[in-house]
Amino acid sequence: MNWPASVTIKEVGPRDGLQNEKVFVATEDKIAWINQLSGTGMKSLEITSFVNPRWIPALADAAEVAKGIKRMPGITYSALVPNRQGLERALEANVDEAAVFMSASETHNQRNINKSISITFPILREVVQAALSAGKSVRGYVSTVFGCPYEGPVSIDEVIRVSDKLFEMGISELSLGDTIGIANPKQVQDILGMLLKRFDAKKLALHFHDTRGTALANILVSMDMGITTFDASVGGLGGCPYAPGASGNVASEDLLFMLDAMGIQTGVNQEKLLSAARFIQEKIGRTLPSRNLQVDSSNE
Amino acid sequence: MNWPASVTIKEVGPRDGLQNEKVFVATEDKIAWINQLSGTGMKSLEITSFVNPRWIPALADAAEVAKGIKRMPGITYSALVPNRQGLERALEANVDEAAVFMSASETHNQRNINKSISITFPILREVVQAALSAGKSVRGYVSTVFGCPYEGPVSIDEVIRVSDKLFEMGISELSLGDTIGIANPKQVQDILGMLLKRFDAKKLALHFHDTRGTALANILVSMDMGITTFDASVGGLGGCPYAPGASGNVASEDLLFMLDAMGIQTGVNQEKLLSAARFIQEKIGRTLPSRNLQVDSSNE
Repeated sequence: MNWPASVTIKEVGPRDGLQNEKVFVATEDKIAWINQLSGTGMKSLEITSFVNPRWIPALADAAEVAKGIKRMPGITYSALVPNRQGLERALEANVDEAAVFMSASETHNQRNINKSISITFPILREVVQAALSAGKSVRGYVSTVFGCPYEGPVSIDEVIRVSDKLFEMGISELSLGDTIGIANPKQVQDILGMLLKRFDAKKLALHFHDTRGTALANILVSMDMGITTFDASVGGLGGCPYAPGASGNVASEDLLFMLDAMGIQTGVNQEKLLSAARFIQEKIGRTLPSRNLQVDSSNE
Repeated sequence: MNWPASVTIKEVGPRDGLQNEKVFVATEDKIAWINQLSGTGMKSLEITSFVNPRWIPALADAAEVAKGIKRMPGITYSALVPNRQGLERALEANVDEAAVFMSASETHNQRNINKSISITFPILREVVQAALSAGKSVRGYVSTVFGCPYEGPVSIDEVIRVSDKLFEMGISELSLGDTIGIANPKQVQDILGMLLKRFDAKKLALHFHDTRGTALANILVSMDMGITTFDASVGGLGGCPYAPGASGNVASEDLLFMLDAMGIQTGVNQEKLLSAARFIQEKIGRTLPSRNLQVDSSNE
């Protein structure tokens, strides 16, 4: 197997992690935590979501968080935006990047954002154009690439169709989401094999959840196929809305342990990452699923 | 990457799992649990250890367990034996296979079995010969192949020297242990690359702990290199004696989820495995680290 010399870890804990946690983390704690994450060496932080607070009350303080954090030079501060209204709030809070999202599965798209895929396209197109006009970069997410909680397997043709549309709109990077943590290494090899015939590996990111323990194995195969950008959440925050109690996003520090040990450069400091993980674990008030956090805590 | 058509999972939970748990599981519960494991489709179960009970009180009931379980045809019931005395007890309890163990690190060998490596060789030679004479197969373990808690990196020359000696004695399979769960995929590729120049892949098993989350990624690389036998523990039992609270052996059901999803045959039934995991989780009385067990439990 061949692995890259360097990898970019994109921290999505403050958005994807917190949005699936039951506890509301106080705004000042979110700000303190994001400031800690800014000091870890991460170059991209997804700090919140400007969706309607009725949908995700855990992130109702999106604007206060975005305005309250200390911006560090060289870091891209990104936020999720579902529509034009969300984008306006995000622009007003001066984020660097807007992240738009939709699903490759019709049923998941419908349940998640209450719209069909075909109705979602023009809405996102407007958001992307407005964000680009405002001088922001735009990141796209496609959910349920490796399986849907409602439909089961998802057609690769549909993944390609949705990805094509998002790139046509002008996104600079597409994050392929294993939304329910069901992907396996063979499937990753197969699906990436097809996607890489059409898309540049440098424009794709992989977003794995560790629900069934396979996230690092999936990342290993992805790296072997040329992918160098991965989303992760400190502590393995997040859980799975379809399986309460299950593990969330792949833990940033578990990914970093593996990359560090393999000699793959990331620029991220493990000690600082673990410190940020301990901080949010205390605020969330439950033992987070990250393996390295538990080894570290138990050694104290 | 290329993966095998089938893989053998060797369940070591009743020995390696329990020996690192603080709770003493009642003999009748151990027996009931092993009988459940016998019904999962596993073809090899390491059921206990005939070391001196003063060293491992959790397995002080080795003989009662070995005599109490129902033997199923087609399953190899194995037990750990440290010396001639342990072997006699194991033979008296009629195990099918003896497992002998030593370390590739001098300090770990000394601390773990209170003898130098050179003094260990003749003791194990006697055990292996006696076991073979009694018509039993013998499995060997080498610990700390990927790192030692006392010495750090372990020389590949020392791993080869110890492995050579064990094969010369007449063991039929060697299990390479990542005792402290420190291995990474690149290291596995490097070390296996060297070992496979000398040893047949069919005679090697890999024994990973998931202390830092890398076990399945390490198994993935091992399979790509031709290894088809892996040790695992239901529930991810076991922890790490050097990091209390850390994860134990790779969970059998996490490994099985990945193999099933990849279309790799094992003959093991996931539902029955999860049921055995729930049983022992209840007896141990703590949430076990297995990802698939937690998804499953949370869905109930």
